[in-house]
Amino acid sequence: MPLWTLHCSACDYAQPGDQPAGVCPACGQPLLAQYDAVAVDARAPHWSLWRYAPVLPLAAGETPVTLGEGMTPLADAPSLARQVGVRRLWIKDEGRNPTASFKARGMSAAVTRARALGAAGLVVPTAGNAGAAIAAYAAAAGLPVKVFAPRTTPPAILMTIAALGADLQLIDGHIGDAGKLATAFANESGWMNVSTLREPYRVEGMKTMGYEVVEQLDGRVPDAIVYPTGGGEGTIGIWKALGEMRDWGWLRSDVRMPRMIVAQSSGCAPIVRAFAAGADRAEPWENPVTYAAGLRVPGPLGDRLLLRVLRESAGDAVAVPDDVTRDATRALSTATGIDAAPEGGCALAVVDRMVREGRLSRDAEVVVFNTGSGASYRRESSDLAAEARG
Amino acid sequence: MPLWTLHCSACDYAQPGDQPAGVCPACGQPLLAQYDAVAVDARAPHWSLWRYAPVLPLAAGETPVTLGEGMTPLADAPSLARQVGVRRLWIKDEGRNPTASFKARGMSAAVTRARALGAAGLVVPTAGNAGAAIAAYAAAAGLPVKVFAPRTTPPAILMTIAALGADLQLIDGHIGDAGKLATAFANESGWMNVSTLREPYRVEGMKTMGYEVVEQLDGRVPDAIVYPTGGGEGTIGIWKALGEMRDWGWLRSDVRMPRMIVAQSSGCAPIVRAFAAGADRAEPWENPVTYAAGLRVPGPLGDRLLLRVLRESAGDAVAVPDDVTRDATRALSTATGIDAAPEGGCALAVVDRMVREGRLSRDAEVVVFNTGSGASYRRESSDLAAEARG
Ligand SMILES: Cc1ncc(COP(=O)(O)O)c(C=O)c1O
Ligand SMILES: Cc1ncc(COP(=O)(O)O)c(C=O)c1O
Repeated sequence: MPLWTLHCSACDYAQPGDQPAGVCPACGQPLLAQYDAVAVDARAPHWSLWRYAPVLPLAAGETPVTLGEGMTPLADAPSLARQVGVRRLWIKDEGRNPTASFKARGMSAAVTRARALGAAGLVVPTAGNAGAAIAAYAAAAGLPVKVFAPRTTPPAILMTIAALGADLQLIDGHIGDAGKLATAFANESGWMNVSTLREPYRVEGMKTMGYEVVEQLDGRVPDAIVYPTGGGEGTIGIWKALGEMRDWGWLRSDVRMPRMIVAQSSGCAPIVRAFAAGADRAEPWENPVTYAAGLRVPGPLGDRLLLRVLRESAGDAVAVPDDVTRDATRALSTATGIDAAPEGGCALAVVDRMVREGRLSRDAEVVVFNTGSGASYRRESSDLAAEARG
Repeated sequence: MPLWTLHCSACDYAQPGDQPAGVCPACGQPLLAQYDAVAVDARAPHWSLWRYAPVLPLAAGETPVTLGEGMTPLADAPSLARQVGVRRLWIKDEGRNPTASFKARGMSAAVTRARALGAAGLVVPTAGNAGAAIAAYAAAAGLPVKVFAPRTTPPAILMTIAALGADLQLIDGHIGDAGKLATAFANESGWMNVSTLREPYRVEGMKTMGYEVVEQLDGRVPDAIVYPTGGGEGTIGIWKALGEMRDWGWLRSDVRMPRMIVAQSSGCAPIVRAFAAGADRAEPWENPVTYAAGLRVPGPLGDRLLLRVLRESAGDAVAVPDDVTRDATRALSTATGIDAAPEGGCALAVVDRMVREGRLSRDAEVVVFNTGSGASYRRESSDLAAEARG
């Protein structure tokens, strides 16, 4: 018996957790899982996010499809805190997951459910890291997988997708275009579409980032959580976790919830634009361009949920240009020893800008997510690689 | 007060743990740390190998230089067990460490001691991954670092070293040649040489792989542990851990110690050759060639220790050619979802060969170490990358 039910994020629709699920059949918006209050012994001897199994989509007696995702480090970064001018700053290093990004968390949960529901295969559109993650979990589950990715995806990520045995199709265009091909392929093949928020379980894996931050801060909650946001499942998942913890009494009753901060690239900032306009939906961004591939999501299905998170948390949404991100990524790496992804650099740059513009208090304690690994983005066209080849 | 003393691995020399230490000043062989029997609560809430702090080189009141290394997954791989024909096979995925290899463990310990002893800077020769690891830990400790690496080192690894702010010098030749330059540089600069087994603490970080395997198997010990061996610190560290656990009563008294298996490439197999000849030292390998960069160590300083481990454990040493390694790496990745490094593929291929040659029982339970990540070795010259660029 599954311990959860699925509820539409926009209307009143609900269904049991053990039935196949995509978006809401009534209104087309994402479904989210709801659990009864339960106790979790997070010191269970699993070295993965499945330590939280009682509040994850795992039915009694089931084994998850796991590669040891989660339990990533939260590094105190006093020199970065000084550089940007906040009281305290931590980096949550999601680059330490399987295939080097937080996308592993969501795929572990989604593939666990897909296998349990008897999926014949998996389909996904990706800006990059989600494709590498699904390739790994499909292999672990013994399922075939088809990945649609923009031709502009960082080559190192494309090579990982192929090395793990996925059927990779490069496309012209962005992840939105890939999404259309994935939907068509899923309809033809009957394989399961595990696109962001088109099924409710990737977000369940993502929410464990929220549980972990609070656990790593010994039950405290930071003043702000800064997340580099594309499709939105990271941001939405963390906010979901914080709400669950509050509702279940996992947090002290007097706790103040953190401000959720969406970091985007000036080259593709649909949520920043919609939030600034006070809208509750986002218009698709035309001509999305950024080297932070995970942020190149012009029209996320989760726009409504993201804007709700920002309002509920008294949050904010800020974009910075790629050259600022590049400098911040280097600063993050050399100050901490964490091999930061551009998305992580973008989040750090957003903190810096917000402090200078007075949008974030100098007294704040801030958690910045580094969502991937710098190694996934480097190109062999660098001078160094040329010299090594030479 | 440090809780350990340092003993020469070859003669009677000993010294206290709080003094600077390189190789044995009497005979030039590696020093190893010794601890009194102590109890460790491995469920301490640190998500790193420093859970084992009481048996690691950390004095009271010190904070380690950590990036959350260790606690890597041990994946049960039944389909690989069937393929190679053993009863049970697990993959210990060390690619999940900071900068994607087990070298992080040793560097966390070595840099912790170097900082405590007031080192002005660090120097290291590397076959690749050790350089990326030292770059990360030097950044975390705020120390400058000079890395000497062969020009043939995989470009992705070289780029990581540079991205983390290390001073990288490419050289013609192999890690032995890099080692000479590193020694000269250390003498001139006064910076600390943290080359494999030239100081006693990298091995201390490495030994935690042994503790973890036993913990992950709920106190059991496998029949064989297969390690891709270059400089030898991984193999030596694991065997040291098993001996400590037995001496301290951490293992059941009736436990049978595992056979330690050294896996090497046919293009550079000094330990395999020496073991076959029954020697207790290894002759340097002429013209070392293998794409498994970590195995390209023609004349390891740890040769004597390695050969002793093989004798004491009734172990074995086997080499396979690179094309066999390539196929095994692919098989490992696609069967498990672990992005395997060639060194891990080599270790799996060695199991396969040993079973077919009757050198390893079909009834054996085997732990195979995947010591790095496949992503570190891939080249953009592939067709896929060209298509993506195009
Ligand atoms: C490294 C990285 N950071 C951030 C994002 C954006 O995350 P989300 O889709 O959860 O908003 C992605 C998505 O691909 C990513 O790969
Ligand atoms: C991925 C990898 N595997 C194995 C080795 C060899 O390990 P050791 O030097 O401990 O024998 C190395 C060393 O560089 C390595 O990088």
